[in-house]
Amino acid sequence: MSLFSFVELMSLFDSITVPTLLLDEARARRNIQRMADKARESGVRFRPHFKTHQSAQVSEWMREYGVTAITVSSLRMASYFADHGWDDITVAFPVNLRELDTINRLAKQIHLGVLVDSFYTAEVLTRRIEAPLDVWIEIDAGDHRTGVAWDSNGDVLSSITAQVLLSSRLTLRGLLTHTGYAYGKSSLTELEQVYYTTVERMTQVRDFLQARGVQGLQLSVGDTPTCSVVERFSGVDEIRPGNFVYYDVMQSEIGSCSVNDIAIALACPVVSKQPDRQQIVVYGGGVHLSKDYTVDRAGRTLYGLVALPTAQGWSEPLADTYMRSLSQEHGVIQTTSLVMDKINIGDLVLVLPVHACMTADLMKQYVLLTGEAVPMLNLNTL
Amino acid sequence: MSLFSFVELMSLFDSITVPTLLLDEARARRNIQRMADKARESGVRFRPHFKTHQSAQVSEWMREYGVTAITVSSLRMASYFADHGWDDITVAFPVNLRELDTINRLAKQIHLGVLVDSFYTAEVLTRRIEAPLDVWIEIDAGDHRTGVAWDSNGDVLSSITAQVLLSSRLTLRGLLTHTGYAYGKSSLTELEQVYYTTVERMTQVRDFLQARGVQGLQLSVGDTPTCSVVERFSGVDEIRPGNFVYYDVMQSEIGSCSVNDIAIALACPVVSKQPDRQQIVVYGGGVHLSKDYTVDRAGRTLYGLVALPTAQGWSEPLADTYMRSLSQEHGVIQTTSLVMDKINIGDLVLVLPVHACMTADLMKQYVLLTGEAVPMLNLNTL
Repeated sequence: MSLFSFVELMSLFDSITVPTLLLDEARARRNIQRMADKARESGVRFRPHFKTHQSAQVSEWMREYGVTAITVSSLRMASYFADHGWDDITVAFPVNLRELDTINRLAKQIHLGVLVDSFYTAEVLTRRIEAPLDVWIEIDAGDHRTGVAWDSNGDVLSSITAQVLLSSRLTLRGLLTHTGYAYGKSSLTELEQVYYTTVERMTQVRDFLQARGVQGLQLSVGDTPTCSVVERFSGVDEIRPGNFVYYDVMQSEIGSCSVNDIAIALACPVVSKQPDRQQIVVYGGGVHLSKDYTVDRAGRTLYGLVALPTAQGWSEPLADTYMRSLSQEHGVIQTTSLVMDKINIGDLVLVLPVHACMTADLMKQYVLLTGEAVPMLNLNTL
Repeated sequence: MSLFSFVELMSLFDSITVPTLLLDEARARRNIQRMADKARESGVRFRPHFKTHQSAQVSEWMREYGVTAITVSSLRMASYFADHGWDDITVAFPVNLRELDTINRLAKQIHLGVLVDSFYTAEVLTRRIEAPLDVWIEIDAGDHRTGVAWDSNGDVLSSITAQVLLSSRLTLRGLLTHTGYAYGKSSLTELEQVYYTTVERMTQVRDFLQARGVQGLQLSVGDTPTCSVVERFSGVDEIRPGNFVYYDVMQSEIGSCSVNDIAIALACPVVSKQPDRQQIVVYGGGVHLSKDYTVDRAGRTLYGLVALPTAQGWSEPLADTYMRSLSQEHGVIQTTSLVMDKINIGDLVLVLPVHACMTADLMKQYVLLTGEAVPMLNLNTL
């Protein structure tokens, strides 16, 4: 079954006048299915992170593959998805004590989980929570952003645990970590090693608490690079990847996906050509793609790869062609004389983003290859 | 006259629960007045770039200082400001031929100017424009992003000029450049030199066309760093700085402003403390500040400086304290043990952004120190 017709697609491309974020539903569904299948076969809960897509419509695709529990990174996202029928949500971000009213409201409405990494926060929560709330203790398993260090002496961990167990409203669900440092790796072996090291460290923390009488703690891990490369999720109860739904150039450079798995592309009008420098300038800049960049295996700093419209959506990335710099609205593409000859001012090119989460957050809307607009969470919708 | 009371300010800080972009109106007005005065004393047209603030309300402050002509970087912004009473607008971005309908609509409504840097675009414009339109030929005076190279052989320049002069609807207003490479400089002498070099090159291009019978061409230049440091705008007809309205950490590093001129700050709740690493983690990440960074004079890569709330708004930046990394919602602040002791989870800190234009674009709304919300252009308002 084809999701769209050639005529529709050509008329979609013709209708685009400004930077527009295209979403290839078939690719996204393939990415979802692959991760959902692997989680099911591994016997772990698949609690995908919805901060990447931030869209109720995309969340419905997830539901079709059996997803019932989700992760978000803010209470705003939690409220949005709760309003769209999701009733088991973990906010994978340290509790923001200034939003206790929102936490209380949501905890009365759905099954809500939060992250705690300090005794102070645990103590305030115990006093001020008004409804049942799941608590995950965030563990820093090597990422050094937030969380209790996996190799700390145990005092903080014990004090948080004791405080949470004191409360009749709080339930200590387990230990949660995000191994963001996986993004610094670039071989599959290294990525697998990050996964196994993480599980080993998390297990060690669980064993420590178990030896002190705390039973039944679950382990939750998750980042797209490691979840994409390990064959089986052993040793954990739950995975929380998010970016996998679209992937992006950073992921393909890391080795988490192929460029043909990337499910979103920013359609950008060509506005200037600079043949002396073999550069094409597009309407599409930092306010559309974000200023996130990656350094590829050839040592080039790049802000995106570049494809052309095709009858199926978009082509493979053009050889020796990349987004070299971004200003607020301009994108400068470095390319070859061959490509320079093929592309004219007024044409559309498709830019594969370096970081899908940031680009989606900026664009606030997708357009499917059928031409259908797919809304996202927007500050104004709250 | 104080613009706000101490009690109002304290209750504003108390009411903030999520990342909130504060705007110090008094500082912004001081920045506007300084630049407007210098332009008037130099006898040049002050056509500020509105891509930085993107707000009808802030644009009214500009009007109070005599501004009647403005610059924007997209037709969306042009439409927004036209709807708010601005009738002399230059879109300082190469003509996007996919938006000719919008150009025609706006050209019928207001006095519109556009940028052309190719014969191809000039030719299409000549055929398809339906109303009077000002054309500026964009010159690349050393920035190497868009524009006709100032030192090219003159063929492209002559062909564009001839084409524009052919049309009864197009008016060739002059030559326009943006010297973005000023952002790479860090001494006032170097910045002044960028200005004088730019004017010299632009003058050379004008002389070339004048020798071929093209009279009355104006010169338009502008970027915040050079416009901030030169004492007098000599040799040009128009300046177009934008960032100066708020300034930011990048500008203070370059030397365009002092940190006390920075007029916006992102209020961020503290959510985690990591005493072992002397780090404070806030709710405030790349989706709020943008991933733009600068390398300061000490060689540190930083994503913002950090201040504390005061009875006047916010303090000077804290010593030895800076935003060290950003993820989607997290901001990691590197600081000292002294500061660690003063700041608690649940407190607010004020982050001075590295790049005000990008942060404002992301936040889509300001809050004045009086507590009043100031709306901006938002995709949803179009």
